[in-house]
Amino acid sequence: MNEDNNKFMQEAARLSAEAIQHLDGGPFGCVIVKDGKVVGKGWNHVMATNDPTAHAEVMAIRDACKNLATPELVGCELYTSAEPCPMCMAAIYWACIPTVYYANTKEDSKALGYEDTIIYDELKKPLNERKIKMVHVPDEAAREVFDFWKKKNNPGSI
Amino acid sequence: MNEDNNKFMQEAARLSAEAIQHLDGGPFGCVIVKDGKVVGKGWNHVMATNDPTAHAEVMAIRDACKNLATPELVGCELYTSAEPCPMCMAAIYWACIPTVYYANTKEDSKALGYEDTIIYDELKKPLNERKIKMVHVPDEAAREVFDFWKKKNNPGSI
Repeated sequence: MNEDNNKFMQEAARLSAEAIQHLDGGPFGCVIVKDGKVVGKGWNHVMATNDPTAHAEVMAIRDACKNLATPELVGCELYTSAEPCPMCMAAIYWACIPTVYYANTKEDSKALGYEDTIIYDELKKPLNERKIKMVHVPDEAAREVFDFWKKKNNPGSI
Repeated sequence: MNEDNNKFMQEAARLSAEAIQHLDGGPFGCVIVKDGKVVGKGWNHVMATNDPTAHAEVMAIRDACKNLATPELVGCELYTSAEPCPMCMAAIYWACIPTVYYANTKEDSKALGYEDTIIYDELKKPLNERKIKMVHVPDEAAREVFDFWKKKNNPGSI
């Protein structure tokens, strides 16, 4: 841990405070850093914008990707005021961010009523055991699009 | 399975075809339905907009929430041309969508190079065993924001 880590975490915490004071958001803030500079910021916008995907980390990823004009944040670090939920954690994987610093823990968030343990548990289950009903509907057109794409491209591992 | 299921899945498949033909997206489409009507649509925008969170399901959720002016899609059904990745699956939980219909399977997506198995596997692991380095940085300001929020609100289970 060094001074910079603390500085960036304090910025994430400042955003979480700003979110609840001025921005009608939940108490979560996030910054993304590259080469010692903040390249993206986010705070919880769920209630403010009626967008359940507008968590601080997702907003910061979208901001950093826009600012750097890339969908891959290789070499970046993410600082978040609270341990990411599984949606944000998976987004961090897709964004290729190698390091996450977090302040408050999942248990701290749970004590506030933000409960993501159930989602983590659900994602471990086979599709037929989940609370969300998952129905396989094979579709010829969807299959043809995949076949067309497979012939045309080799998209790699994204 | 009924005619409506097929109709909505065909619309999701149509969007996946449109995405690759005209919209510079990956081969994924999604519609959200309420009371027999499409209330939200999405397709993969990742490369088109440099946004790694712009998967078809996330875009459809954001569209439906905007159209219905709510962050909770209770009573809606989601039709997607391919089984959701863990980011989208968690977003579906946050959006309170009870039923998901999918056409192509995770294995089909993997054959195209879209690999989310590793993310599902990672989310099952304790933080200290993940490929992404997870560093706990306790922060007094982040803690104070949580304490302030706890005293002020009882946000329920979202």
